[in-house]
Amino acid sequence: MGDQVYLGVDLGGTAIKVGLCDEQGNLLQTDEGPTGTEHGPDVVLENIAQYARKLVTESAYTWDQVAGIGAGIAGFLDIPEGFVKLSPNLGWRNVPVKKILEEKLGKPVKIDNDANVAALGEAWAGAGRGIANIVCYTLGTGVGGGIIINGRIYQGSNGMAGELGHMIIVPDLEAIDCGCGKKGCLETVSSATGIIRMGKEAVERGEHTSLALVENIMAKDVFDAAKTGDETALRIINRAAMYLGKSMATVSVVINPQRFVVGGGVSKAGDILFDAIRKYYRECTQETAQEGVDIVPAILGNDAGIVGAAGLNLRG
Amino acid sequence: MGDQVYLGVDLGGTAIKVGLCDEQGNLLQTDEGPTGTEHGPDVVLENIAQYARKLVTESAYTWDQVAGIGAGIAGFLDIPEGFVKLSPNLGWRNVPVKKILEEKLGKPVKIDNDANVAALGEAWAGAGRGIANIVCYTLGTGVGGGIIINGRIYQGSNGMAGELGHMIIVPDLEAIDCGCGKKGCLETVSSATGIIRMGKEAVERGEHTSLALVENIMAKDVFDAAKTGDETALRIINRAAMYLGKSMATVSVVINPQRFVVGGGVSKAGDILFDAIRKYYRECTQETAQEGVDIVPAILGNDAGIVGAAGLNLRG
Repeated sequence: MGDQVYLGVDLGGTAIKVGLCDEQGNLLQTDEGPTGTEHGPDVVLENIAQYARKLVTESAYTWDQVAGIGAGIAGFLDIPEGFVKLSPNLGWRNVPVKKILEEKLGKPVKIDNDANVAALGEAWAGAGRGIANIVCYTLGTGVGGGIIINGRIYQGSNGMAGELGHMIIVPDLEAIDCGCGKKGCLETVSSATGIIRMGKEAVERGEHTSLALVENIMAKDVFDAAKTGDETALRIINRAAMYLGKSMATVSVVINPQRFVVGGGVSKAGDILFDAIRKYYRECTQETAQEGVDIVPAILGNDAGIVGAAGLNLRG
Repeated sequence: MGDQVYLGVDLGGTAIKVGLCDEQGNLLQTDEGPTGTEHGPDVVLENIAQYARKLVTESAYTWDQVAGIGAGIAGFLDIPEGFVKLSPNLGWRNVPVKKILEEKLGKPVKIDNDANVAALGEAWAGAGRGIANIVCYTLGTGVGGGIIINGRIYQGSNGMAGELGHMIIVPDLEAIDCGCGKKGCLETVSSATGIIRMGKEAVERGEHTSLALVENIMAKDVFDAAKTGDETALRIINRAAMYLGKSMATVSVVINPQRFVVGGGVSKAGDILFDAIRKYYRECTQETAQEGVDIVPAILGNDAGIVGAAGLNLRG
């Protein structure tokens, strides 16, 4: 057992998940525990260290075999310095995560944001395995993205590459305000939040839809209604898919990736969503730019974050 | 004089321009001659070889110092193979340029399309010198683009990265057909062709504009009219600039370059154009993604093609 392994940390507001991967990105072992957000960064970072050591102790590997540790964190990060500038869901400001964890654990530590890490996980060992140039969308509360070029995360100049949720894509006449301060961002229509909003608005307008019977509409309710043929729900999913497909058409003539990988809760809508995304993508993309390009669901689910974090020391 | 030099070829339909660059991209010497398109590819490639040898003979360098030769060619290319699949303006189909020139000249030869080569020229030794991540727009008959990542041309999966003229950006209600088969491409509004079309349409609609006095409107007539305060001309340039600025906003959240370089004939409109591009870019781009990002005119003019071609063997 002389092989090297890579340890990944998915740092969420309520749980810390840790996992060990081999050099091909196969997830060998996982564990998790409470984050302890309420006790502040010192305790949270100590928890990470403890969960990481315990994971390795209980594995078939030794601590010496751990080549590096990566962590995915939601927030504004200084990635080269390994510094959390601001993380609203952890309540952190200016926490030198890399420095503290390297002191605690004696291994090289890298951090990156959650969407980039999920993209790297899929690229390394998921739906993008073996493909050099990939663009990943994560459709959750917002729309996150990650750009993988030559198998590595591409950060751009300010670490803002892959902020796909903030492509302005909805025409002015239909555009609504986005949390980022602009209007008409992809995230306003193609996130779970956008889908829920469109569902509620349709009910408020008095549309004839089974969604009117749902107490507190969630994205899944819209998918379920669509699967029974509810026209309002189908129109909402079609609209979310149309802007996703159009945004991919744009991405294709900018960086021409070979594959789009779509994950996150909204991607669970399945074929109804993917068929429509592909239709609009084909319609809107120049023929040569779409040759050989496919749009596929993510396959790692919640493990993408751990796997991608583990991969940061190889491909960050 | 033991330094290496790089030879660039700008292969146009009427003239072949050749130039020698040092390792920093400084253009040392140039020459040009007729393409001889009417005599077919064999003669054209022999002309390139002759102009290249003559350039070096007349320079302070020896043929042994030439480290590599690059050529920029408009058309559909197989870049890794150095093969011209189709070049409408040369009337070529399936011409193995790299193979033939390497046989004739005994040096490594690389080819790339004209927009990528111009982008590389500006990145290497022009408005982007010293900056790693750049996106270049060339506003001519069409809108070309080139993506420079870590100082090198980024091709994408099918060589279609940087086809910025085919970003679909004009809302459906105002979109017109593009030569590529889609509607609403950036090229339909922000190219010289688009500006001329908008000028002619304004005259046909009977707008009160000095353009009505121009026999055959060219893009320069629209710029000149705008500079005298002609409202129609100002509106046209503003519209071309608005979609350029919006497209840069999108590019910023996809790959977050540090600098946009804008060249080609339309960029000669100067401050009227650039001020408006910057205004719309600032309005439409998420704050963090635009931090430290600037939008500047290209500076190499017609030499960008030779310089970038020369650079292909270093940064292609």
